[in-house]
Amino acid sequence: MASTFGQLFRITTWGESHGGGVGVVVDGCPPKLKLTEADIQPELNRRRPGQSKITSRRREPDVVQILSGTFEGKTIGSPICLWVKNEDARPDAYLEMKEKFRPSHADYTYFAKYGIRNWQGGGRASARETIGRVAAGAIAKKILRERFGVETLAYVKQVQNISADIDPDKARLKDVESNIVRCPDKTAAEKMIALIDEMRRAGDTVGGIVEGIARGVPAGWGEPVFDKLGADLAKAMMSLPASKGFEIGSGFDSIWMTGREHNDAFRARNKNVFTTTNFSGGIQGGISNGQTIFFRVAFKPVATVMHEQDTVDVRLANTKLKARGRHDPCVLPRAVPMVEAMTALVLADHALRQKAQCG
Amino acid sequence: MASTFGQLFRITTWGESHGGGVGVVVDGCPPKLKLTEADIQPELNRRRPGQSKITSRRREPDVVQILSGTFEGKTIGSPICLWVKNEDARPDAYLEMKEKFRPSHADYTYFAKYGIRNWQGGGRASARETIGRVAAGAIAKKILRERFGVETLAYVKQVQNISADIDPDKARLKDVESNIVRCPDKTAAEKMIALIDEMRRAGDTVGGIVEGIARGVPAGWGEPVFDKLGADLAKAMMSLPASKGFEIGSGFDSIWMTGREHNDAFRARNKNVFTTTNFSGGIQGGISNGQTIFFRVAFKPVATVMHEQDTVDVRLANTKLKARGRHDPCVLPRAVPMVEAMTALVLADHALRQKAQCG
Amino acid sequence: MASTFGQLFRITTWGESHGGGVGVVVDGCPPKLKLTEADIQPELNRRRPGQSKITSRRREPDVVQILSGTFEGKTIGSPICLWVKNEDARPDAYLEMKEKFRPSHADYTYFAKYGIRNWQGGGRASARETIGRVAAGAIAKKILRERFGVETLAYVKQVQNISADIDPDKARLKDVESNIVRCPDKTAAEKMIALIDEMRRAGDTVGGIVEGIARGVPAGWGEPVFDKLGADLAKAMMSLPASKGFEIGSGFDSIWMTGREHNDAFRARNKNVFTTTNFSGGIQGGISNGQTIFFRVAFKPVATVMHEQDTVDVRLANTKLKARGRHDPCVLPRAVPMVEAMTALVLADHALRQKAQCG
Amino acid sequence: MASTFGQLFRITTWGESHGGGVGVVVDGCPPKLKLTEADIQPELNRRRPGQSKITSRRREPDVVQILSGTFEGKTIGSPICLWVKNEDARPDAYLEMKEKFRPSHADYTYFAKYGIRNWQGGGRASARETIGRVAAGAIAKKILRERFGVETLAYVKQVQNISADIDPDKARLKDVESNIVRCPDKTAAEKMIALIDEMRRAGDTVGGIVEGIARGVPAGWGEPVFDKLGADLAKAMMSLPASKGFEIGSGFDSIWMTGREHNDAFRARNKNVFTTTNFSGGIQGGISNGQTIFFRVAFKPVATVMHEQDTVDVRLANTKLKARGRHDPCVLPRAVPMVEAMTALVLADHALRQKAQCG
Repeated sequence: MASTFGQLFRITTWGESHGGGVGVVVDGCPPKLKLTEADIQPELNRRRPGQSKITSRRREPDVVQILSGTFEGKTIGSPICLWVKNEDARPDAYLEMKEKFRPSHADYTYFAKYGIRNWQGGGRASARETIGRVAAGAIAKKILRERFGVETLAYVKQVQNISADIDPDKARLKDVESNIVRCPDKTAAEKMIALIDEMRRAGDTVGGIVEGIARGVPAGWGEPVFDKLGADLAKAMMSLPASKGFEIGSGFDSIWMTGREHNDAFRARNKNVFTTTNFSGGIQGGISNGQTIFFRVAFKPVATVMHEQDTVDVRLANTKLKARGRHDPCVLPRAVPMVEAMTALVLADHALRQKAQCG
Repeated sequence: MASTFGQLFRITTWGESHGGGVGVVVDGCPPKLKLTEADIQPELNRRRPGQSKITSRRREPDVVQILSGTFEGKTIGSPICLWVKNEDARPDAYLEMKEKFRPSHADYTYFAKYGIRNWQGGGRASARETIGRVAAGAIAKKILRERFGVETLAYVKQVQNISADIDPDKARLKDVESNIVRCPDKTAAEKMIALIDEMRRAGDTVGGIVEGIARGVPAGWGEPVFDKLGADLAKAMMSLPASKGFEIGSGFDSIWMTGREHNDAFRARNKNVFTTTNFSGGIQGGISNGQTIFFRVAFKPVATVMHEQDTVDVRLANTKLKARGRHDPCVLPRAVPMVEAMTALVLADHALRQKAQCG
Repeated sequence: MASTFGQLFRITTWGESHGGGVGVVVDGCPPKLKLTEADIQPELNRRRPGQSKITSRRREPDVVQILSGTFEGKTIGSPICLWVKNEDARPDAYLEMKEKFRPSHADYTYFAKYGIRNWQGGGRASARETIGRVAAGAIAKKILRERFGVETLAYVKQVQNISADIDPDKARLKDVESNIVRCPDKTAAEKMIALIDEMRRAGDTVGGIVEGIARGVPAGWGEPVFDKLGADLAKAMMSLPASKGFEIGSGFDSIWMTGREHNDAFRARNKNVFTTTNFSGGIQGGISNGQTIFFRVAFKPVATVMHEQDTVDVRLANTKLKARGRHDPCVLPRAVPMVEAMTALVLADHALRQKAQCG
Repeated sequence: MASTFGQLFRITTWGESHGGGVGVVVDGCPPKLKLTEADIQPELNRRRPGQSKITSRRREPDVVQILSGTFEGKTIGSPICLWVKNEDARPDAYLEMKEKFRPSHADYTYFAKYGIRNWQGGGRASARETIGRVAAGAIAKKILRERFGVETLAYVKQVQNISADIDPDKARLKDVESNIVRCPDKTAAEKMIALIDEMRRAGDTVGGIVEGIARGVPAGWGEPVFDKLGADLAKAMMSLPASKGFEIGSGFDSIWMTGREHNDAFRARNKNVFTTTNFSGGIQGGISNGQTIFFRVAFKPVATVMHEQDTVDVRLANTKLKARGRHDPCVLPRAVPMVEAMTALVLADHALRQKAQCG
């Protein structure tokens, strides 16, 4: 069950970096939603490498094809299978990886688990797997927008020591997409781009923080106890490659406040309830309270660097390894559509769950 | 499905703060494990209020009873139902809560979701629900220890600005339990206790960080893609009451390093693979690599404070509310057994999953 | 996951014939449903032994207690835990079973599976487990009736060679309950009772067929492919103790007709669609078509007979075994509420699933 | 979740009769199993139309392609996506179906459920969906054979009034495949073929019974309570198109015996336990007892006949409909590989479940 996410709006991704391609099956999508490849492709374009000088220079066109689940441009309630062919297959670029485990990659752990591994470019652990998530997320975003009036968005909040100033209640997609690092604070964005480009030239990598938000979620989504909205978002984000931390609302900084300071006072105006602060991040007791949901995800500096490193080989002897070719100096700009996709998948699932039990 | 956690070692908690009690059904437990109430009660004693001057003064004996699943002191492979009666029922203490939503509690969101709520002491959102988790976790810990040689542990790492110095590879349960705040760094522990006690007298609350660890996990546990070990731990921890953040290994601090600095070099000695650093926190690509697993959970200052606060009532009119009676100035000492329990539940589940597919 | 049934209206049963009792946790029940023990106890009374001369003479009062999930007489959306204490504990009656496997019981297979077994009266394989199902089914029936206008019913259709003449569109609960064998055809009922009583006196047992029906199910419930309404009903019924066969609509007799004869012609009157025959049994392509759903379940003669039989002991040596005390000459009258319960559980689950995806 | 089957060896089928194709994702397959298209294609060849004069004359080559989950001819533990392109797209043949609901097909119920339907040849309800099941079943069969020594087989037992004489303990694949109706009793097979051919010429259809068996299953597979081996087999079989009934072991005929006659006596020889009869069909209390598992599935005469029939149109007005082109006079020969596939899927799943909890 490792490859399935969600209870009612449920996705199953499949595919490795090398082989017939990668894809996803979306099961449980409501019927009569207008859907063609044109609804999905733009999100994949945001995710793919080779978009700009600060992402991997690999060229992956990543053209999506709908294999099932629609009829005359609409969903019919059947599982939707989306497929993206693999194109960039250059096994010789990976020959050394056949013999050696890359540090801080999944090579060794997959081998320990399965006793076999696809050593070509990461196999199942490749970031190409997220194509399925982003494609499915495009459908979830459409449902949320058209059926529930919910908007999901993400942006780069911090790159190493460069932090941006962004109001979750006001951030706009247009501003996020206005620069190649996907940070709506233009001043910070310029510094971030410069830093990443410097890292690229140094053959090194850098990490940072993506902030995800959801606006318009009505009070009442999410489940008590285990499937809390924040818990499901945490799992979703921590399942993304290179993520190391998750925090919601006040997050780790909540510990610097006392309870009196941290509590979000309720107020009502015209029978509408709101809170005067939003340290809760829009979720209380696992359930949305109608305020903007916002959270942050820490992404480590990615592991592929252009320098020789200590490691072991498949015979468990000590050796050294140096990556060849192209590397991705910072995962953050491409992580933005992934965070949006996972946010939308969690929310679409809970929207349906709410309808089922309380609708 | 909100009340079920785990795929193969699967628990379902039930019960509210007021009513017939709280409990859990554990399904999928391997047979022939020695198990009596004496294996479970000590963990509940660590969780319950009234243990010390720095936790809630409520008196809840929380005596566990095994209703099913064992025979002559051993598990038989059937679901194990554990039950703890409610004792501390004083509905009049909650009468004001019938009319008013407590700020930063789940009162309002539950009402928005269900259109009805058990207003006596939190109902399903009460921390009493974690009794079921801790009881089930005691079983998971026993399996991990006896069948897999895995040890799980947690401790208080930080209270507001007081941070402890603890080595995850060396921390011992004995030291954790040596003081009432459950911090194995004695110097820090004293300061923490003083701070919490001060908060208690001020009618206020304070938050902090619990660190959880697992030692002896073999390489190969965890699943690629969605059910990554770190993702499942994140969900488990973010489903605990008052948690606001989760980070694994280097966590949020990973963003201050470059990829070259952050990568954990592999080395081998006598065919044993290890890493020279452990920024990965024992997990790579979602799968354990044989090193110590460690992570941190941020808990906000709990919401019940002894001061009047702004809020709204059930008719959605603005009002004020002041809690009565006893409050819990810091959730951290009692969160320690909860974090251990959830860690053990995640690992026991993945131990069985590993056996199923790759055993 | 052996002990959980349903996706959205989801039950988990627990308990053995001997020990602290048997019960069930119902998760996913919609809120604000009026519910007290008085809604559940009558169904347990229909299920329990000792009701009449033709069922087991064992005396099990089977008093149900709601431990969680309701507040002031209404469901609140939380898991509902129902508990029935065990009373009839006479381990000495089972001492011989400690050493010997009863033929056509689950003694041997449980031992082969788990390497341990509760030899007192069947343990987990006891029909007492169905208490949890019947109790949960009472809630499902209430929801179906009050929220969806759906009625579920079952009755004894055949005992050995005595077959009853009953119209699924017209059968009434009142007539089912008018005699101790639960067959609304009074003439057949008398003969059935005589036959069962004869078997009882002979220390032998007899099987037969229970027919289950659901009326008022709107067109559109059920899922394509795997979770077809008929497939879920089949699983539900074949999970009942002693069941050996399931057929829906025309069932096995469909093979005597040609396609032309078997097809149910659609007709419409005032925009209402109906079929002129109902060989489909109310389900087409796995989804309800608005006609009465009806199906039959074959129950074998139960295995406990008052005669010496060949078997093996726990050391795998050949031996003989003769049951002592009381036996149940025919499971059918008590299987009726079980079939009703499982029918209601399947339908309530699909009612919520329909709301989730298409509501 | 309608499109997923299995807990640990888990498949998700996707695709409609018209569109990009049909397929399946197999998740949870153990690693290091040799697997290429050549392991799967023969089973699809047994399933496809156009094999002989007594099946549909439609020509569907049904060439399978492995899109993911293998590397250098072996499984790697990742999800295996299998894809079969649609070829036989002739939408004009279905134009009348756009306006009218075919009797005893799923046209009306899908429309009632989703408010939209793919009217081209059945859409999701088409028997083409079973391609995914049969392809996945080929993998399950290979695992059962190579890792567990279990053999699965099915054959036509009865066509209308022509019943075959076959011993489940001795039936061989070779004999099943020796004739076009897939009945190892050659005398009966000839009569069956003549009858089906007669039906074909009359533009009518005929039903019958497929018997499925599993040999070599060790004692101990299956779960108590809900996921009984017989219950899971029942669901699997009742989820196949056109199935109307399921019975295991003595099945419906068990009602003609008394308990004394029906019980299977245990005997032991050299510490091996066996039963002297096998009315239980190899399963007791839901768990395998080491004897041959056998069961029967009733398939109705399929609904497409070459005669005008009463029905309603999409405006809910009465009308008439006559199918055009080719029809399948009997589903049984092609149902045989489907029954085998579903049997193997159920058993592979339970094999892994047994390893997880009791291995």
